[in-house]
Amino acid sequence: MYHHIKKLMYTVNIGTPDVKFGNLLLEQFGGANGELAAAMQYTIQGWNCVDDLARRDLLLDIGTEELSHLEVVGALIRMHLKDLKTNREAAEADPLVTIAGGGGVSLYNSVGDAWTADYLKITGELDVDLRSNIAAEARAKIVYERLIDHTDDPGTIDTLQFLMTREITHLKAFTAALESMEKPAFSIGFLKPTPGIVDEYFNASTGDGDEGDTDMRGPWQTSFGLHPVESEMDGGPGLSVDDIHGTEGQEDRGKQDSGQKATTSPFAEALSQTHPSTNKPGLKSNGNGSSNGHSKSTNGNSIKSKKTAKA
Amino acid sequence: MYHHIKKLMYTVNIGTPDVKFGNLLLEQFGGANGELAAAMQYTIQGWNCVDDLARRDLLLDIGTEELSHLEVVGALIRMHLKDLKTNREAAEADPLVTIAGGGGVSLYNSVGDAWTADYLKITGELDVDLRSNIAAEARAKIVYERLIDHTDDPGTIDTLQFLMTREITHLKAFTAALESMEKPAFSIGFLKPTPGIVDEYFNASTGDGDEGDTDMRGPWQTSFGLHPVESEMDGGPGLSVDDIHGTEGQEDRGKQDSGQKATTSPFAEALSQTHPSTNKPGLKSNGNGSSNGHSKSTNGNSIKSKKTAKA
Amino acid sequence: MYHHIKKLMYTVNIGTPDVKFGNLLLEQFGGANGELAAAMQYTIQGWNCVDDLARRDLLLDIGTEELSHLEVVGALIRMHLKDLKTNREAAEADPLVTIAGGGGVSLYNSVGDAWTADYLKITGELDVDLRSNIAAEARAKIVYERLIDHTDDPGTIDTLQFLMTREITHLKAFTAALESMEKPAFSIGFLKPTPGIVDEYFNASTGDGDEGDTDMRGPWQTSFGLHPVESEMDGGPGLSVDDIHGTEGQEDRGKQDSGQKATTSPFAEALSQTHPSTNKPGLKSNGNGSSNGHSKSTNGNSIKSKKTAKA
Amino acid sequence: MYHHIKKLMYTVNIGTPDVKFGNLLLEQFGGANGELAAAMQYTIQGWNCVDDLARRDLLLDIGTEELSHLEVVGALIRMHLKDLKTNREAAEADPLVTIAGGGGVSLYNSVGDAWTADYLKITGELDVDLRSNIAAEARAKIVYERLIDHTDDPGTIDTLQFLMTREITHLKAFTAALESMEKPAFSIGFLKPTPGIVDEYFNASTGDGDEGDTDMRGPWQTSFGLHPVESEMDGGPGLSVDDIHGTEGQEDRGKQDSGQKATTSPFAEALSQTHPSTNKPGLKSNGNGSSNGHSKSTNGNSIKSKKTAKA
Amino acid sequence: MYHHIKKLMYTVNIGTPDVKFGNLLLEQFGGANGELAAAMQYTIQGWNCVDDLARRDLLLDIGTEELSHLEVVGALIRMHLKDLKTNREAAEADPLVTIAGGGGVSLYNSVGDAWTADYLKITGELDVDLRSNIAAEARAKIVYERLIDHTDDPGTIDTLQFLMTREITHLKAFTAALESMEKPAFSIGFLKPTPGIVDEYFNASTGDGDEGDTDMRGPWQTSFGLHPVESEMDGGPGLSVDDIHGTEGQEDRGKQDSGQKATTSPFAEALSQTHPSTNKPGLKSNGNGSSNGHSKSTNGNSIKSKKTAKA
Amino acid sequence: MYHHIKKLMYTVNIGTPDVKFGNLLLEQFGGANGELAAAMQYTIQGWNCVDDLARRDLLLDIGTEELSHLEVVGALIRMHLKDLKTNREAAEADPLVTIAGGGGVSLYNSVGDAWTADYLKITGELDVDLRSNIAAEARAKIVYERLIDHTDDPGTIDTLQFLMTREITHLKAFTAALESMEKPAFSIGFLKPTPGIVDEYFNASTGDGDEGDTDMRGPWQTSFGLHPVESEMDGGPGLSVDDIHGTEGQEDRGKQDSGQKATTSPFAEALSQTHPSTNKPGLKSNGNGSSNGHSKSTNGNSIKSKKTAKA
Repeated sequence: MYHHIKKLMYTVNIGTPDVKFGNLLLEQFGGANGELAAAMQYTIQGWNCVDDLARRDLLLDIGTEELSHLEVVGALIRMHLKDLKTNREAAEADPLVTIAGGGGVSLYNSVGDAWTADYLKITGELDVDLRSNIAAEARAKIVYERLIDHTDDPGTIDTLQFLMTREITHLKAFTAALESMEKPAFSIGFLKPTPGIVDEYFNASTGDGDEGDTDMRGPWQTSFGLHPVESEMDGGPGLSVDDIHGTEGQEDRGKQDSGQKATTSPFAEALSQTHPSTNKPGLKSNGNGSSNGHSKSTNGNSIKSKKTAKA
Repeated sequence: MYHHIKKLMYTVNIGTPDVKFGNLLLEQFGGANGELAAAMQYTIQGWNCVDDLARRDLLLDIGTEELSHLEVVGALIRMHLKDLKTNREAAEADPLVTIAGGGGVSLYNSVGDAWTADYLKITGELDVDLRSNIAAEARAKIVYERLIDHTDDPGTIDTLQFLMTREITHLKAFTAALESMEKPAFSIGFLKPTPGIVDEYFNASTGDGDEGDTDMRGPWQTSFGLHPVESEMDGGPGLSVDDIHGTEGQEDRGKQDSGQKATTSPFAEALSQTHPSTNKPGLKSNGNGSSNGHSKSTNGNSIKSKKTAKA
Repeated sequence: MYHHIKKLMYTVNIGTPDVKFGNLLLEQFGGANGELAAAMQYTIQGWNCVDDLARRDLLLDIGTEELSHLEVVGALIRMHLKDLKTNREAAEADPLVTIAGGGGVSLYNSVGDAWTADYLKITGELDVDLRSNIAAEARAKIVYERLIDHTDDPGTIDTLQFLMTREITHLKAFTAALESMEKPAFSIGFLKPTPGIVDEYFNASTGDGDEGDTDMRGPWQTSFGLHPVESEMDGGPGLSVDDIHGTEGQEDRGKQDSGQKATTSPFAEALSQTHPSTNKPGLKSNGNGSSNGHSKSTNGNSIKSKKTAKA
Repeated sequence: MYHHIKKLMYTVNIGTPDVKFGNLLLEQFGGANGELAAAMQYTIQGWNCVDDLARRDLLLDIGTEELSHLEVVGALIRMHLKDLKTNREAAEADPLVTIAGGGGVSLYNSVGDAWTADYLKITGELDVDLRSNIAAEARAKIVYERLIDHTDDPGTIDTLQFLMTREITHLKAFTAALESMEKPAFSIGFLKPTPGIVDEYFNASTGDGDEGDTDMRGPWQTSFGLHPVESEMDGGPGLSVDDIHGTEGQEDRGKQDSGQKATTSPFAEALSQTHPSTNKPGLKSNGNGSSNGHSKSTNGNSIKSKKTAKA
Repeated sequence: MYHHIKKLMYTVNIGTPDVKFGNLLLEQFGGANGELAAAMQYTIQGWNCVDDLARRDLLLDIGTEELSHLEVVGALIRMHLKDLKTNREAAEADPLVTIAGGGGVSLYNSVGDAWTADYLKITGELDVDLRSNIAAEARAKIVYERLIDHTDDPGTIDTLQFLMTREITHLKAFTAALESMEKPAFSIGFLKPTPGIVDEYFNASTGDGDEGDTDMRGPWQTSFGLHPVESEMDGGPGLSVDDIHGTEGQEDRGKQDSGQKATTSPFAEALSQTHPSTNKPGLKSNGNGSSNGHSKSTNGNSIKSKKTAKA
Repeated sequence: MYHHIKKLMYTVNIGTPDVKFGNLLLEQFGGANGELAAAMQYTIQGWNCVDDLARRDLLLDIGTEELSHLEVVGALIRMHLKDLKTNREAAEADPLVTIAGGGGVSLYNSVGDAWTADYLKITGELDVDLRSNIAAEARAKIVYERLIDHTDDPGTIDTLQFLMTREITHLKAFTAALESMEKPAFSIGFLKPTPGIVDEYFNASTGDGDEGDTDMRGPWQTSFGLHPVESEMDGGPGLSVDDIHGTEGQEDRGKQDSGQKATTSPFAEALSQTHPSTNKPGLKSNGNGSSNGHSKSTNGNSIKSKKTAKA
């Protein structure tokens, strides 16, 4: 359940309104890496995260804070758009806001594209979602930084500095949440990659161009077991595709908070039975198929009804 | 500022999960008339409504409640999607949710279209926005009704009945907010329509078809001063387009809450100078151009900073 | 069947072309509240309205007129875009129109977003659709008003005043069509809301903010039987969610034109059997479940074929 | 100006409704190659075609007919969707139509994607637009053919055969309109391609694959002056990119109807001054820069106002 | 399999960067008729074209070349956007590129709309796809021409002239590929149109307007067997819709390369059994239903596995 | 420049075609985390990466490999869709592919949504882009894993195992590329966050719910300097927003490959002058504003033209 408190998380104080800058700011209101995108991504991930209530709390803490940030950005934009309604030149700077929106904010980015859920990255796999969130925070941080670079107004800069700082806070929190799961490096989900071919760095772009480009080397070709493989195109052996023979056993799921499950958890039973593919007849399984140890929920699809509870 | 309380506004209690029904329910999660659309439409209208703080409070009350409804719908869907993750047949019912989303909810409608801000109707004109909201509540009500028609599960029906009922509550509140503005009937915004031609009902679809259709009459051709006009196509006089000569004076703005303005109001000064078109040289103005009596804000773009306040 | 007559519904006469204003005008050509959106919304609602041929006629009358308006707006824009093709500065004002469109109009809004059917509100429920149309006309009216505010050209203003006036005409007609259905106030569709909880106005946004906001009162909390309820967050009792026990009986369908049904009506039989949910075993029904009195169509899915008819 | 006649262009007569086939039919209602796309593409091209009123008439004739086809397809779909509203199994076949649309048609394709103007191809260049229309008719024809393949209902087949036939009619008309312009083969717009390099067919996909693919030859490498050129990748010389030195003079505009121009033509003057690039200092122009002989319009942006005319 | 060579297909050399022109150029990077659209349309058509390996080679040759063009356009844009990152005025010219993209290119068009696959025209019917490609090349050509018209920079013009020239090359190749299929004129796909009605040109737009429009004649009403038919609206007989009686037999498939089929061809068997509709009981078939002579593939869904092959 | 080799990177060998599984596979062809999204994201990031040619090579190596993967997925889908064209039941499984696409693949996801560039995350900031790529690889891996879970066909599993394995390879390479930049932990871009407030973990979701949720603790509240702060809502002090006073100095840019810059680098000069905000008068700068040491490029916007070079 949500509650709104009639106070901005950061109070805004600007000098001269700058319509065109207000327009740029829309990128963080209704843009791809803006506050609504952050709020929705984390909140919905949290609602889906019924197996690890501690990290669900994290996702909802930060998702809710982003909603409060959306409100702050909206207030900042409105102050900069002050002249939009009556000034023709200003109006041309953003016809959509002026003509269709009456000078108010709406869920558009800086060029008037409507916000879309296609911006979101929600997979329902906790460690994957945390990686998506780490990247999302990094993107939001860099957008705030660029906005700061295009204004001289001290009050505006203060607000943006606040919002930018919080992205780093969240970056730290999501990183801690991921690392504390203690999944091995490069282990994602449940199925293992095929050994050998997983370590082949394929050199698909070659040649010495007239742009100054050459075929270069770097640690990404030799770290973590990787080694470079030349393409058949360039006379190399190509990838060792013959080594693929079915699946390869299971990854560790990582350390989730296991003391407590949501009573609404719809997946609890399902998860304890997943990934039968490793046991499919006729498929070679290199893995040891260890039990993933999910505790069964005996009442997966019924929750203690408030009504019943009071009866 | 927002706060999340770890309790659903309506606790959910379902019988047997029904994956395909869960899919239908997505229409109210990420669909065109769903809860996110309602939450965003009212909330952003509220943030833009800086001249009438009482109705702004209304918009934020209901916008916030819709966020809590979004959470309830999400919980209901998750319980119905329980089998999605492992059951192949169930999975085919919604490949997007299964394969891309891991069985969790996301901001899609019942056929997997990503939510888009194009669903929203936000104009920054209070009386117009309230009409859009009345229509939005009516649409949301009818969608819940249809969902109830396609399930037999008592717990699910209870939840949907709760959500459906609240739409009627909001319909009442928005209607009261509109009527208490006391704008004359059919008066929208500031500019008057041209008399005469405004009352011509144009008969653009005629004939007696083999589908049973005929050219029919109804009160919509004769109420509120309207009278029918036949098209030139059918030998009629057509619309009296010669009667258009410039604008026609101003409409009453309606009764807004005027005792209190947002200190962040970016439009306060601007609005007091609007609509110079009625005084444009060379244009006939039939209106009496009465002052719209907006109180000027002397500090339109500075708000009492929390920081400053504490200094 | 449609016919095009080579005459504009309103002939256009402008002074100096104004490329940037032409750009703003695109909002009413291919924008969210523009003429195509209106034409499509009403026309398709009309095609779906097979039970009430009189109101179907209304929807097609107005839907067709909006198509004629689309043509007028297109002609007006083309005259303003005159310089687009060769003037570089003008071209920058709308690169999409210039480079991709050769200076012609296309189905974009003022910032170049492609028109999408997501703008439309079509539910197939007549009273709900009429409410959506009333709101749509109000929005279109306000957009024309804002366009008038941003030009001084008399010919352009005349054209816009004509188009704006017609929106009020349609607003009257849709209102008459809704009121003459004589549905009780706040009755939408077929299912009744739950008494008691339907009258609880939930106060979800509270506090006294540093923006000047306070928790305010208004008629929307006390009209039509409503009374305010404080959130558990603020120590209040919260909504009386325990009162939800199944559905609550049927609403009146309202007075439709019943003398004549479309021979193509695909829904006639279906509707006479709808809403069995009020009789579901185990569900409490507070309603009196009165017959909704739909006349059965005996030939729901066959129409008098033109071919057959001539045989 | 448009008029609607209450009669379908082709009356529909179906046997047993087939909900899933109704769903497939939506592809031609609100799909990428459906009737609305055709109607909008040709009509708006016609509105933009102010220099050639004869071909403008053609575009509006066909554009208007496609609107009538949209109505026919809509009627056909509605008859097939008859069971959608009450039958749960049928409802699952198209949740969007059922739950959000109440069983009526709307501007979606067969999988529920909202119609978008991104489907349209409108360039404002007459010969190019005609080519786009020829392709569009071919696509619409093939879609109707596939729909016929998936139904056995005679009435439905008759309707689809009618609609499919008309696409071939339009294909003929657009082809005649293009050929009668008498533009030389492969001459598009105003600027000539660079000789030499225009005739080099570049072999960018080579090798003998294990799928049965080999590097093959065909008339497309040797017709119309073309000859194959091997990539540097395969030891060939590559394209003769060194031969590009500025623009190459003008193409013939083609034979347009020149006796009559729209008085609203916004481009008349502009066009007579276009393409100064061929005379840019420092650029080699191989062309002979012949006058394109456009008649100047002396009143490009004023049209005979109906109002003025009557004065 | 793809390989990237570190060399531009056309090396770029510009004078002074022109941020606003860089913005216009985005139309050919991520716009509707831009290089990615061309690359994807032809390439995916090629992957689907498993029955005619020679024309599949053509589609992949040109599709791959368009990818190389995309890289050239991207390099050209980047050079023009040089000032974007730090100059505020320049930044306002494209806020999306500046703030969200850090001055780099991305898959947007000239007004910041994200690239969408809705731009593509892919039907899986070879002759239809070739027509779509001919139209696509014509559109891309005209867009490059307009870009050339808006710049004076010699290096930029050279690059654009190169790209424009190649579109004509591809236009020739696609035309040769279509003509060499030797399908009869106006024969599309497999099903014949209904004789008689296919030749009726319907005059759906009539009248003498005050814009200078009149109801005009042209070769498109009398070529290829066509003759004009007046609408019932204007007292004419209307289309002879009574002549539709089922399907009308098969079209010739055209001459495809038949010596070689892809071993991956999933359609080989299926196609040999298609179009049973011409033989449906109760439907009149005027056609002679000739065998379409497709060679059966005996191993439609297994290909020689690389792994197996080596075993 | 690109070259296509007529050989799949992984040859496909399936048993019985499974139309519905083919449909699921579309998620990795034209879906949000599919192969085109990966190919475009990395490739365009590479084109924008003109300051670090070594990592640009990495981005193009992997971007090109993803294009080859797209081809493999397309071939796999086509084999599974074999029955789509003629089988009605199969056709209903994906009407868009069948009716509009003739059974071929196209750029849609598993529910028929057109691919959109809104899926891409491209910021032009190298370390941020690498984080986005790490997250993208993790998502793609999990989607392949889920696809494997829904099929029993050994050949299909082998292909998917190959593709899944390569995502881990890329995950390793991107991680190595990021780590070798040696940016300090939680340092993003150029501007520092504000100390103090950056370490406050805000507890925005609280309470003990009837779903089993409680307000929980975890390492994300206490790692990396973080400590929890309670909301004013719950009687806590709230965030220390008073501590924001302008910007805070610069972050280290990280270690890029500096020996070699692209001669096309449009940003070289620009970057050496960025981030003047730290020196804005009136703004407190806590940072030490160290030089970021970018080497100037003396020929930012001219590249060695191939033509010139040969002259």
